[in-house]
Amino acid sequence: MNNFYFYIPTKVYFGKNQVEKLPGCIREFGNRVLLVYGKDSIKKNGIYNDVVSQLKKSDIFFIELSGVDPNPRISTVREGARVCKENNIQIVLGVGGGSVIDCSKAIAAASKYDGDPWDIWAKKAEPKKALPVGAVITLAATASEMNKNSVISNPDTEEKKGFGHDMLIPKFAIMDPAYTVTVPKRPTAAGIADIMSHVFEYYFIEVPGATLQDEFCEGVLRTVIKYGKQAIDEPANYEARANLLWAGSMALNGVSSRGKLFDGLLHSLEHALSALYDISHGEGLALIIPYWMDAALSEKTMHRFARYARNIWNIQEPDDMTAAKRGIEQTSKFYKQLGLPQKLSDLGIPFDRFEDIAAKSMRGDTTGNLIVFTKADVVKFLERMK
Amino acid sequence: MNNFYFYIPTKVYFGKNQVEKLPGCIREFGNRVLLVYGKDSIKKNGIYNDVVSQLKKSDIFFIELSGVDPNPRISTVREGARVCKENNIQIVLGVGGGSVIDCSKAIAAASKYDGDPWDIWAKKAEPKKALPVGAVITLAATASEMNKNSVISNPDTEEKKGFGHDMLIPKFAIMDPAYTVTVPKRPTAAGIADIMSHVFEYYFIEVPGATLQDEFCEGVLRTVIKYGKQAIDEPANYEARANLLWAGSMALNGVSSRGKLFDGLLHSLEHALSALYDISHGEGLALIIPYWMDAALSEKTMHRFARYARNIWNIQEPDDMTAAKRGIEQTSKFYKQLGLPQKLSDLGIPFDRFEDIAAKSMRGDTTGNLIVFTKADVVKFLERMK
Repeated sequence: MNNFYFYIPTKVYFGKNQVEKLPGCIREFGNRVLLVYGKDSIKKNGIYNDVVSQLKKSDIFFIELSGVDPNPRISTVREGARVCKENNIQIVLGVGGGSVIDCSKAIAAASKYDGDPWDIWAKKAEPKKALPVGAVITLAATASEMNKNSVISNPDTEEKKGFGHDMLIPKFAIMDPAYTVTVPKRPTAAGIADIMSHVFEYYFIEVPGATLQDEFCEGVLRTVIKYGKQAIDEPANYEARANLLWAGSMALNGVSSRGKLFDGLLHSLEHALSALYDISHGEGLALIIPYWMDAALSEKTMHRFARYARNIWNIQEPDDMTAAKRGIEQTSKFYKQLGLPQKLSDLGIPFDRFEDIAAKSMRGDTTGNLIVFTKADVVKFLERMK
Repeated sequence: MNNFYFYIPTKVYFGKNQVEKLPGCIREFGNRVLLVYGKDSIKKNGIYNDVVSQLKKSDIFFIELSGVDPNPRISTVREGARVCKENNIQIVLGVGGGSVIDCSKAIAAASKYDGDPWDIWAKKAEPKKALPVGAVITLAATASEMNKNSVISNPDTEEKKGFGHDMLIPKFAIMDPAYTVTVPKRPTAAGIADIMSHVFEYYFIEVPGATLQDEFCEGVLRTVIKYGKQAIDEPANYEARANLLWAGSMALNGVSSRGKLFDGLLHSLEHALSALYDISHGEGLALIIPYWMDAALSEKTMHRFARYARNIWNIQEPDDMTAAKRGIEQTSKFYKQLGLPQKLSDLGIPFDRFEDIAAKSMRGDTTGNLIVFTKADVVKFLERMK
C-alpha cells in the first residue's frame, strides 16, 4: 500500500427530502448565495423550486447563474466570478451534476483571484483563497460533490483542463436519490461509465498490499453494474438511483483509491476529445474504456484483468488470458446495452485531427501509467476506434 | 437504503514516516499542546521520541499527560481538563490507540466545560465547545481517529459510557502502519475483534437497498481476516498492519455503515462487562460475538448469516441454515486461533453479578436491534458463556 493523504470534509446529507437541510448548511457561511445551475431540467423536475423555496423561506439572498454547459466553460466562470465580486457573495451553491459543481468550484476560486481565471487552469497562477462551495446533486457521476477537482473548458484554446485544491472541496452536499430519477437514459448511462472509469483508473494498476482498496473498487463496480441497467430500465427505482449516487461519490472521493496509483490515460484522452468536439464526458469514456483495456491486456497484466473478469463479471474460466478477454468483452457489451457509443463515429467525431487529439492528451511526452502512450501510440489507438 | 449523514473532516496522513506532517498539522490550531498517551510502550518503541522530536524542532510547547488506562477513566479526563485550563492549551494530541484518542476527545470537551466532566457522559450536560483534537495512531481497532465517539469509564459508579459530537472528530490523524508493528499479539487480536464487531453491528441487520454498504462491510471483513492471522504470526509485516489499520478506520468512520441500521447489543453488553471488570474491550467483544451470532440465527435471519458464511468464509454449502452455522463456527474458530477468549472465565469474570451486568447493558428496557434482549434474556445469555 502506498502512502496517502485522505481528506473529505464535506457534510453529506443523503436521502429523501434532505433539501430541508440546505438553509442550515448555507448559514454556516453567510446568507448571500450565487445559485449556479445548468439548463432548464431543474425547473422542469421541481428541484429548482425546492431549492429556491428553502432559500426564500430562510431569507437567504441569492443571485442566479444558469446555463452552465456539460463541459463548463471559462467564460461562465468569468461571469460567475464577476457576479460574486459585485454582489458580495458569500457562498457558491451548485445545483446539478458534476459540470455544475466543477463550475461552482471554479467560480469560487476565480472570485478571490484578481487576474484572468484561466490562469488557474493554465497553471500560471495558484489561488490562495476561495469562496466556500455547496452542492445539491442531481446526477450520479463525477464525485465532484466530495472531491477537490474542477475541470473547465476553454473553447478559444481548445483546451479542457483540471485544477484541484482542498479549499474547493464542497462544504456540504445534499444528495437525494429522488433528485436523480428524472435523469434521462443517455446521461444516466454516461454517468455510469464515468463512475466505472474512476475505479478503472486506479484498479488495474497492481499496488502490492492495497487489498482493502481493491475490495472497495470491486464493491463499487459490482454495485454500479447491478443497478446501472436497472436505473436505465426503471428510471424511478429509488434503490438503484441511491446506490449509483453513493457509488459515484465513493469512486472518486478517495475511499476506493487512496493508497493506489492513478493511470490517467482514460481521462487525458477523453479531455482531449471533449476539448475539440464538446462531447459528453461519460460517453467519451465509455467509448475509450474497452479499447484501452484491450491495449493494456498483456502477459504481465492478465492476472489482474482475469481477477476483474471473475470478481466483477462472475466469469468461471480457469485460464487467465481467456478470462481476461471475456471480462473486457462483457464490459463492452454492458456499455452497448446501456446505449453507449462503440466507435468515434457514434459520437460524431471525424477522423481528420488525430494528431491534434494525441497532442492534447499528452502529460509531458506521454500519457498513462498502466500503459504508457506516446503521441504516435495515441494516433494508432484512435485508428482502432474508427 | 436509509437516509444518512456522513461527515469525516479528519485530514489523514497514512503511511511511512508521516509523523513528519505533525508540526504542520498542529500549527493550524496553535502551538500549545497537551500530549496524551498511555503507559510506557510508546517510549520503548520509539514513537514517543519521534513525536517529541517533531514538536521540539518546531518549537511547539507541550505538556504531557500519561497513564491513560485501556478503559480510560473520568479521573484522567478531569486531570487533563485541569491542565488544559491552567496552561492555555490549544490542542489535545493523543498518541496511542482508541483509549488514548477517546480520552483526548473527552479532555478536549471537558476543558471547555465548567461543571464536572462526567456530566457530559451521564447526559446531564451537552458541551457546546471543545479544543481541537489530533491523533497519532498506534493500534488498529476503534476508528476513534476518524469518528466522533468517546467512551469513558467511571469506576465510582461502575459505568462505561459513550458520548459523541462532530466537534470531537480529530482534525488530523497520523497513521503509520510501522507504528503498529510492535503491538503484542494479545492487543493485536483484540483490535481485530473490535474492528469486526463494528462491521457486525451494522452488517447483519438487512436494510433493503444498502448494497454498496454491504459490499464495503464484506470488503473490510475479508481484509481483516486475511491479514489478522498474518499480523499475529508475522508482527512486522507492513502490509498486514497497513490493511488492518485502514480497515479499522473504514469499519467505523461511516464508510461501511451510513445508510444501514445499528444493532448495539455487542457494545452495550461489552461496556457493561468492562465497567464492572475492567477487561479489554476487544477481548470482551470477541467473547460475546459468536454467542450473539448463535442467538441471532433464526429462520428469519439465516439468509443473511448464510451470505456471511459464503462471502466471508467461502463456505460452499447450498442450505442456508447449515451454511449459516458453519460461518458462525468459523468465526469462533478464528478467534480461538488468535488466542481470544471463549468463555467468561477466560477473562476472569465471575458468575455472581449477572443481574448487574444485565442491568448495565440496557438501553431503556431492552438492548439490541437484530435481536432484542431484556434483562432476563441477558442473564440467560451470560449463563451460556460460563
